[in-house]
Amino acid sequence: MRMRRKKNLDTRLEDCSYLRLDDSHMTDVKKVFANDNPLHLEIGCGKGQFTLENARRNPNVNFIAVEMVENVVVSAMEKIKAAELENVRFLVVNAERIGELLPEGSVERLYLNFSCPYPKRRYTKHRLTHTRFLTQYKKILKKGGEIHLKTDNKEFYEFSLNSFCDNDFKLKNICFDLHASDFEGNIVTEYEERFVSQGLPIYRVEAVNV
Amino acid sequence: MRMRRKKNLDTRLEDCSYLRLDDSHMTDVKKVFANDNPLHLEIGCGKGQFTLENARRNPNVNFIAVEMVENVVVSAMEKIKAAELENVRFLVVNAERIGELLPEGSVERLYLNFSCPYPKRRYTKHRLTHTRFLTQYKKILKKGGEIHLKTDNKEFYEFSLNSFCDNDFKLKNICFDLHASDFEGNIVTEYEERFVSQGLPIYRVEAVNV
Repeated sequence: MRMRRKKNLDTRLEDCSYLRLDDSHMTDVKKVFANDNPLHLEIGCGKGQFTLENARRNPNVNFIAVEMVENVVVSAMEKIKAAELENVRFLVVNAERIGELLPEGSVERLYLNFSCPYPKRRYTKHRLTHTRFLTQYKKILKKGGEIHLKTDNKEFYEFSLNSFCDNDFKLKNICFDLHASDFEGNIVTEYEERFVSQGLPIYRVEAVNV
Repeated sequence: MRMRRKKNLDTRLEDCSYLRLDDSHMTDVKKVFANDNPLHLEIGCGKGQFTLENARRNPNVNFIAVEMVENVVVSAMEKIKAAELENVRFLVVNAERIGELLPEGSVERLYLNFSCPYPKRRYTKHRLTHTRFLTQYKKILKKGGEIHLKTDNKEFYEFSLNSFCDNDFKLKNICFDLHASDFEGNIVTEYEERFVSQGLPIYRVEAVNV
């Protein structure tokens, strides 16, 4: 399925362009945010509910939300604009380019929320936890930096755990049912709301860049 | 529940005593097996179907089956005796003593099959993947040696994955549904037969002593 380009998309993107990072060169993170705060990334931010709430709760953290679909990211940008948050920027690129756009070891935490599972085996390499992406994340993560992953998809979760281990991440807080666990401070995403209301378990894990 | 001591248990154990290792001192593995073959261990061998089949398929591997319940292990011993296998011995002890009975770095592989999950939180420390047991396993495993775990219990599996990671084992071949996977050479245990016939998934993982 090809998504139809939204009406007025260009105008809407233009109105939020101050939030969008230039993807033609390496980002000067300190200059962009004008501070030394830790940097968190969301890969595949979709319509931005998670990053919005995360940025609200954590004003002393800088956030970069990565999303390659303009049709979708425009809603996320408008949310951040409306909330007048100054600690969020966007990179509208494929995550496979992230290593050329953010400095080595600059990221403290990276979020993967309900990434597309690409269930068919021949699309495995499109999964955001495939080795070709993990190699990029590893470059930009600090030593000890963490990837926090949530998903409703058991097969994608199983694939991701293996991929993390194969790429020398150390796992912790493996959780097969987030909403039945004693995890605190969870930020519920759009997808998550729907799955939880259907009584489906949410899988979660933290992968440390050791 | 306390199990009633089987009739003639002492006589039956006596008939298999040549298979039972002395648990009053460190085992001289080379002397026991009179060869240099790799050593595999099953912790909690129960009635021994898995070790029996494994020892049959792998005559060039030495096996030690560990089980603390005499009432149960006697059936396993009788199976090995009837099959006239020379590459199996038994240790009738609690697994927490394994570090004092087998030489450091002597074990290449350790099997945990359908270990009791001890679902109640206050019995966590009895789970065979609790840190107090993993510390023992780590002592006797070679560097690069592996623990192969199978279970039908999701909570025990989740607990075990975390415990392995927390104790610096490296995971591989994490599998949420063994019988739907392309894993080859699986040896089906007594418990496994029952669960699979009920359509329940079998969870599996390999934990490497890095």
